[in-house]
Formats: sequence, C-alpha cells, structure tokens
Amino acid sequence: MEFTGIYHKTSEQMSYPLNERELIINLKTGYDVEKVFIHYGDPFEAGILGGKETWTGKREEIFYKKRLRFQIWWTTTLVPAYKRCKYFFELHTTDQVWYYFEDGFLTEEQLHMEGRMQQCFVVPWMNPADINRTPDWVNDTVWYQIFPDRFCNGTPGKNAGQLCPWRNGPVTNEERFGGNLEGIRQKLPYLKELGINGIYLNPIMEAESNHKYDTTDYMKIDPCFGEKEDFIRLVQEAHAQGIRIMVDAVFNHCGRKFAPWLDVLEKGRASRYADWFMVNTWPIPEKQADTRDGRYYSFAFADGMPKLNTNNEEVIDYFCGICRDWITDYDIDGIRFDVGNEVSHRFLKTLRHHLKALKPDIYLLGEIWHDASQWLAGDEYDSVMNYPLTSGIHDFFLDSSMKKEEFEFMVNRCYTMYMQQNNNVMFNLLDSHDTERLMNRFHSLDTFYQQLAVLFTMPGSPCIFYGTEIAMEGGHDPDCRRCMPWEELELPENQEKTAALRKLILLRRTEPACRSLYFHFPNEYSSGRCVEYIKLDGEGREVEVLLNCSREMMEIKEGGEVLFSRGFHDRLLEPGGTLIRHKNR
Amino acid sequence: MEFTGIYHKTSEQMSYPLNERELIINLKTGYDVEKVFIHYGDPFEAGILGGKETWTGKREEIFYKKRLRFQIWWTTTLVPAYKRCKYFFELHTTDQVWYYFEDGFLTEEQLHMEGRMQQCFVVPWMNPADINRTPDWVNDTVWYQIFPDRFCNGTPGKNAGQLCPWRNGPVTNEERFGGNLEGIRQKLPYLKELGINGIYLNPIMEAESNHKYDTTDYMKIDPCFGEKEDFIRLVQEAHAQGIRIMVDAVFNHCGRKFAPWLDVLEKGRASRYADWFMVNTWPIPEKQADTRDGRYYSFAFADGMPKLNTNNEEVIDYFCGICRDWITDYDIDGIRFDVGNEVSHRFLKTLRHHLKALKPDIYLLGEIWHDASQWLAGDEYDSVMNYPLTSGIHDFFLDSSMKKEEFEFMVNRCYTMYMQQNNNVMFNLLDSHDTERLMNRFHSLDTFYQQLAVLFTMPGSPCIFYGTEIAMEGGHDPDCRRCMPWEELELPENQEKTAALRKLILLRRTEPACRSLYFHFPNEYSSGRCVEYIKLDGEGREVEVLLNCSREMMEIKEGGEVLFSRGFHDRLLEPGGTLIRHKNR
Repeated sequence: MEFTGIYHKTSEQMSYPLNERELIINLKTGYDVEKVFIHYGDPFEAGILGGKETWTGKREEIFYKKRLRFQIWWTTTLVPAYKRCKYFFELHTTDQVWYYFEDGFLTEEQLHMEGRMQQCFVVPWMNPADINRTPDWVNDTVWYQIFPDRFCNGTPGKNAGQLCPWRNGPVTNEERFGGNLEGIRQKLPYLKELGINGIYLNPIMEAESNHKYDTTDYMKIDPCFGEKEDFIRLVQEAHAQGIRIMVDAVFNHCGRKFAPWLDVLEKGRASRYADWFMVNTWPIPEKQADTRDGRYYSFAFADGMPKLNTNNEEVIDYFCGICRDWITDYDIDGIRFDVGNEVSHRFLKTLRHHLKALKPDIYLLGEIWHDASQWLAGDEYDSVMNYPLTSGIHDFFLDSSMKKEEFEFMVNRCYTMYMQQNNNVMFNLLDSHDTERLMNRFHSLDTFYQQLAVLFTMPGSPCIFYGTEIAMEGGHDPDCRRCMPWEELELPENQEKTAALRKLILLRRTEPACRSLYFHFPNEYSSGRCVEYIKLDGEGREVEVLLNCSREMMEIKEGGEVLFSRGFHDRLLEPGGTLIRHKNR
Repeated sequence: MEFTGIYHKTSEQMSYPLNERELIINLKTGYDVEKVFIHYGDPFEAGILGGKETWTGKREEIFYKKRLRFQIWWTTTLVPAYKRCKYFFELHTTDQVWYYFEDGFLTEEQLHMEGRMQQCFVVPWMNPADINRTPDWVNDTVWYQIFPDRFCNGTPGKNAGQLCPWRNGPVTNEERFGGNLEGIRQKLPYLKELGINGIYLNPIMEAESNHKYDTTDYMKIDPCFGEKEDFIRLVQEAHAQGIRIMVDAVFNHCGRKFAPWLDVLEKGRASRYADWFMVNTWPIPEKQADTRDGRYYSFAFADGMPKLNTNNEEVIDYFCGICRDWITDYDIDGIRFDVGNEVSHRFLKTLRHHLKALKPDIYLLGEIWHDASQWLAGDEYDSVMNYPLTSGIHDFFLDSSMKKEEFEFMVNRCYTMYMQQNNNVMFNLLDSHDTERLMNRFHSLDTFYQQLAVLFTMPGSPCIFYGTEIAMEGGHDPDCRRCMPWEELELPENQEKTAALRKLILLRRTEPACRSLYFHFPNEYSSGRCVEYIKLDGEGREVEVLLNCSREMMEIKEGGEVLFSRGFHDRLLEPGGTLIRHKNR
C-alpha cells in the first residue's frame, strides 16, 4: 500500500461538524486504495477511556470520492447519536488490507493483539458554540464590485474643477474622476437589470488617495463620494431592490492623516496611541523613503500606510466599535477585510463574536490570497477571496500543456481546502482592482466567456468587477481601474456582451445546480483539453458544462436544453466554445 | 518523485512562529527526497501582491531532519526581517528536481513560465497576540500525581468510624480510606527528598464519590480532605519547598448534587439553570438507568454526571470565576482539565484569556488522549496528557515484533504532532488513576525501569503516579488507586526501588540534555531491538540512552560517565538492561 499517500486528521477540513447533527469525515489515500470502510461509534460504548474496554465500531463503506492530482479524496457523513465519535479506517488495495489509526497502520493481527492501545481518531463533542456557520444568503448572491471613483459620477456639476473629465482608456494612479455614491444609487436600476444582487464597494471612508486604502477617518464617508445620508440612502434603495451591500474595511493599516498616527508623529513615545502602531525606532526618524529601514512597520513598504497594532486590546475595541457603528448606522450586509491575513487572529475572533451577536447574518470576508484554513475555522471569517481558484483557472488557460485532468484536480483541490460551510459562500472572482482585468489576460472573448462559465457554475458566490459586462480591458493596477464608459454601453457589440453576461447571471440565480456544492467530472470525451463537468442540485436536476479548450472541433453528445452557449452549432463545439445545458437523464 | 509523500501547510505545527523573531517551517517528504532547499523572503520584496511583480526568494538548504515511518520530517528556522514570509520548496531526488508550491509541483520550465500565478506558501504576519507561549517552569518540573483519598491520612483520629482501615492490596470503588490534604502536607519532606517539584492532585472539591470527579461544590474543599485553610497551608508550604501545585478541574460535567442541577431537577425547564446542562427531554424522565436514552447528555453514559453546557456564556463566566478564585485564594500553579476535549473551544479560549491575564505563568493542561492540535494552537491549553507517547512506549514493549526503528518513528511522531512550545511542556506519563499501573503491565522491574528511563529523557515534563517509587502494582480503575503502603516503604527492596527512582528524578533535574527538545537516533548497534538515542542540551553536552529490549546480551561501545544503569556490567548490557550515560565526544 502507498502509505505516504494516506492522510487524515481530526482537525481543520478533514473532520468537522457540518451542523449540530452531521459530522463530515474526509480521508486522502493513494490511487492504489480501492475500497475504504470506516469503523465508528460512540467512544464510551464499551466503557471509560483508558480502561480495559474492547471497543468495536459499526463498519460502513465510504463511497463518495474526488480525484486529486496524486490522491483520492474520500468523504462521508456520520450522524453520531450522542454528538461524539470515535473511528478508524479499513483500507483495501487489490491484495492488502490495513487498518488506519491516528498513530499509523495496523495489520489484522495487530488490530486484535491483546493489550494493544488502539489510538483511534476521536471527535470528542460537537459543541454548538464551535460549529462553523456561514450566512445562507451568500450562496444566492451574484456580486458586482465597484471602484467608486471610476463607476459613475451622479453629481457631475459638483467639484468639476478638481476632477479629470470622465474618459475612456488608460488612467493613472493620481487622477480623480468623480465617481460617487449618488452615481451608484442612480445606476441601481441598471444593476438590477443586469441581474446582480450584491455590491462589493471598495473603500468609501475618508482617505487621501483615489483608492481610499489609506483611511484618514473610519467614521466619515469620504467627501469625494458623498455624505453619510448618501450612503444611508444607497443602502436603503439597494435593499429595496433586493441588492445587498458589502463595504471594504482597512484595519491592517491606516493613512498618514489618521488622527492617532498624527498624534504619534507629534508626541512620539509619549502619545497615548504609541502602541496603536508598530513603531520600532523612537523618535521616529523623519524620512521620505519607504519603510525598509524598519523604523515602523507598514503595509508592504508604504510609509504612508503605517501598520495598526491589532494585538493591542484598545485597537481591537476601537475597530469593533467602528464595525458596530457601520452596521447600526448603515445596515450593511457584509464587510471585506483588506489585507485580512495580517491582522491578529485575536482581533478577528473578538470582532466576529461581537458582530455576529449584533447581526447574525453579516458576511465577513477576508482578503487572503493563499490557503486560509486558519481563518476559516468558524470563529473568524465566513469566507475569503478565492484567489487560488482564480489562479488555477488562469493557469489552465495559460498553459496549454495542461490536460483536462489538471483542471479537475485544481477544482477539487480548491474545494477540499475548506469546510463545506465555507465552500458554500466562497467569494469567487476572476479579477479585481488588485489584478489585471480578465479580458486583458488573453484578449479573447472565447476564453473570457469560458472562464466566466466556470465562475458562474462553481460553488460559492461569484463576483464580477464593474465593466466585465462589456469585457473591459485594463492592465495591472492602476490600469484595471478605468472609468466605466457609459456612453459606449449602447454600442451593439456591448449590448451583445452585456446580454451574454446577463444570461450567465440569470442562469446562476435560477438554476440551483449552478450554485450547489455538488459536482463531478464524467470524462465522457476523449479530447485532452475538453473541460467537462456536471453540477447537481441534489434533487435530480443536473447541469452540464463543456468547454472546448483544445484546437480541434468537438462533436458533442446529445443533451438537454441549452442554457448558455458560444461556438456551438449542430452538435459541434468549436475551439474556444462554451456549452452549458441541462443534462438528460 | 513520490509526490503523495510530500506535505506542508501554513497552519498548525507545520509552520508557526516560535517567538516574535523565529519562524519554524516543517516539511514532510518521502524517503526518495535527498535534498531540500527553501526559497523565502518578504512577500512585498518585489511589489504588491497580484501585480506584475516577479518575486524570487533567498535559497537555503534545509539540513535538519527526523525519520518518520514512511516519511522524512525536515525542519528549519527562519528569521523574517519584517515579521512576514513567503516561500516555496525545491526538492531533489537522485535524478529529479521539483518546485513545491501551495497548489502543487512545478517543473523548472513551469516555474519560469511568463504570466503563471505562483501560489507560494505565506506566513502573513507574526502577531505577538497569536504566538503560542507556554510557561517556562514546566520543563524543569517532575510531577508526582496524588489520588488524595489513598495517599496519606494526616488526621487518623478524625472520622475513623466512617473510613475503611488503611490497607495494602486491592481496593473497590466504594471504599474511603481517609487520605487528606493534611496527610499530603506532612509528606512534603518525603516528596522533597524524592526529588519531585510538582504535585498534580486529583480533584479536591466537594463531591460524593471517593474520586471526586462528580463535583457538588466547585468552591468548597471536600470535607473528607480538609478545609480551605488546609489547602492554603499545603500550597504555601509546598511553594516554600519549591514544589508547585496543580489541581484538577471537572468542568465537563458535575455531580448529581451540584446546586444548579438540583434546581433543574426541581423546576424543570423553568429553572434559570435549564440551559446550563444539555437536557433533551422535558420534563426529565425519572430513571435510574444510564443516559443511553438521551434524556440528557452526561459524561460517558453516567447519569450521575450530567454534562455542563460550556456553550452557554453564563456557564463560561461561572467557571472563569471559579478558576479566578482558585488562583487568588490558593495561588495554585496549574489546572488540569478533566475530559478537556469535550468542553467548547469558545469556553477554553475565553478562560485562557482571563487566567493568563491574572497569572501569566499558570499551566493549563487538558486531559486529551488523542491528537490535540486543535487545543494547542496557543489560545487554549499549554499542554495535554501525552497518552499517545504512553501508548507508543507501551506498544513497543508489548509487541516484540516491532524493531527499534518503530520506537524511533513513534517518538518522532509524538514530537512532530505539536509546536515546540507545547512539546517543551508536554505532560508525559506512563500511568495514572485512569489506567492500570505501569508495573501491572509486564510485572517486570526491568521493563518498568526501561520505560521510566524513556519517560525521564523525553522532552516535556514527566509525571509519576504515587507509588511508582516502589513499583506498586494495580490493575485498571479502581485497582490502580490502592493505598500508599507507608509501613512497607522501609523494606530493603522498596528502599532500593525508591533510590533508583530518586536517581532518575535527580538525573532529569540536573541534566539539561534530559529535559531538552533535541534528540537523535544514531543507530550504532545492529541489534533489532536495542533502543538507542542521544539527547543534546544544545551546548555540547550529550546524554546517551540505551535499552536492550532484545533477548540477547549486547556489547556496548565505550562511553562516558554512567548516570543510571540496570543490568550493565563490563560493557555488557543484559536483556532488559538500561543504560543512561554521558556521551564521550
């Protein structure tokens, strides 16, 4: 048996309660393992631990599995009668049987050896307070991300002199174009018609830059974007349209004009805010350069973004208060935490505890680009920005040497990283204000829609960056933040693109199978780069996704109603073609 | 390359800050990997994430490794300049090189492919508030566990009528023998001379049973054991002798006479304590049987031990208050949490936060028999009872088909399960009130001392159960809780045994190498069952441990000063023999 390929642990995503009743158990094995059984039962069935009990569990086969690149991922759901569970596995290859315990592998003989201390896996108690719960509504949401300065100026007469005239094409990091909250409010009918039902807003609190990631005042709407009343009105009207609002919280660092930082700059170590930041050298040397000298820590090496000390209980209280006020004053539905991996876990645990008490279905989203298991145990974030999926999709389209299995392995990797509760509300995106635009990567509408087809059929919650409806181009920051070219939207080619996206959005919102956690890769076509997968709604309805990423025309088998397609005629799917349809059963 | 054997994750014990400066990185690979390099550096060295940066790290070889049964465990320590770190690995077999990233393995060509999104491993920030810190003093402590009713009666005249006369040999679960706090106090000089410097006391708060795991009143010393003043005096005098005191906290369940439970029994659902327990059927059916009917949850199925609801914030506050009072009233040094895996994580996190603020070096020990990674992340327990090591040692001595490598793999497994901070204060034991006694397992003094030799040279903190000094016998509960036969202690054979244990204790306390985290298995002897390992103090002093677990006489190489031995004469180590000595360098 390929012992090194076998892995289970009673923590993180390998073993966890899905709710107060069901326990999910996952196991990785090598491909040589053909059958898996779990032996499980109550830990105290045969007496007290450590005594002379001879415990034997109930034996059940595990059937459900996913393919990873080198391993099989086995999944089962148990319902422990008394909220606790003890178990071990029985693994079969063609000619061997091994029993897998926490401390290793036993033969049949060792399993029955008198006096041997069997180290079973144990889930001691499924405590309600520790169960990972995420808001239900997120999986039904299609997000639209808005970079406020560039979306729509709703008060074009105001401050016209200080703004660059709205224009199409490249922009720089210094320009301000006057997009504001009133503009977004005016476009609510447009967004409603597009079909989205969630808006993720880049920061709107007072800050010096156009991107507002250098907050000056966490309680004051940036005057460029409007006033308190404008945001209250925007949220109210959005809610009336069934659109939820998520704001961006920048608590990892502040801007250079944040009052406590000004106080520290003025008073040095004597400031009552001295420990609100991470200053290493007192008095702080006056320098204009970046923070590579380590005089204080900052976001990246940006000296204008001093790092906040979220290890300090006062700072924790302060930002808990800020979030509380945002919720009570504006009734926001979600908070996206910028640089959400650098703030302390202590801060996040405290914050979640407070905010979920105030608004139980608030969505807490962390900006984390890497494996975020530590933040998704149920007591910090509900979800993270799913950049591993972004990268995985991108790399498959970039690297034509990758076969379709690689796509399957990548998707399965992404959806075996976290618990199902998190997977169900993952924030899936293909681009953002922090990346180049999707259309910029391959400059091909075919590839663009193939990737969007994936985005809209993955478990979680898809987000599109403003302008995606017209396949807007734009390179890395700042070029991905161009102005929305409203006057070009009526052009026939843009109408066509918008219609295509509207169709995908509608499909996502009306087909439970598109939103569900359940999928498999049937491998019905021999083409090496035809991505094919089936989404299941759990009640018998299936949606089939086919993407021809090869260079040859593909003949497609008969199927059900076509829900979305490009390059599909007479049962032929062109290279670059996309087909989403009901699966005939 | 054996890809399935390769494993790294940026969480739990695989990647964590050891302190505010050092970052520990561990990696598992198959045995085919011959060389490992880490490429690491600041994540923002080349610009902001998601942009067009081309990041390259510093390349360093990883040398330090341990052997697991099927894998090599590689370890390195990094010192990130700005408290954050991004990295990937470079793995070499005889003829292959692969680059290992969070999402898998890249070839050299893929590594340099233009536009590929590299998913490095990331440690975003080493926040002080999240660093796992454990009390320094624990590693210097040798514990002596006392089951109070059976250790010593210091007031023999009192309540004599209600007690069984002190006796040697088997006992039952119903008997009371009158051991008490005053008895322990009187034996402090004895314990001091034995060399121990920590006492772990089984529960002493008021309860009905003799074992006191069914608490009636968490604030009242059980009258069988004494009064408040007796415990205050015991702790004070122990401290004066340099002996620390750890108490047993039973917060998973209470006894049938606990006032809130009586209130629930009386008032049913209307009781203000109704949610302090886990009652499923109202009114609670009156039954005498166990709790398999699920009318309420309890410890195991013991209806006299109703389960406390540590998900309830009131219950959490209540027990935080109890612990606070124990610390302020008695100045205890440690708390051992009974059934420490079944209470909620929320409770433990809150409790730790409060208690460490009150007494920063309090030792929080969980009774957990299985992998306890989830409880040892730094915000719950400092340590757990190291039963995996207990079982591992036991099984090696039981199963003579196991070769010495199995011992090495077992020890390495135990010490790669948790972070070094926890390993350094692991509560190591070979038996307890919950198991049969060590001497009972093999009825052989040779095996007994071989196992003790291991206990006293493992990283962590060893604990011996009262009576171990005279190799007391005793089967499973209740037989392991026999009365301490004071009048037999003077017998020559018991004097000899006590002297041997005293020697081991002294060795542990005076040789830093015995206590240290550093060890390796040199494999200098060909015998299949000669356990041999070297402990290193990190400053050049080495202690060698040799156990002849084979059936043949072994010829031992020359070495340094003998520190402890049995069955060792003229460079010959008998079967069953033990040798601990300085290593000549």
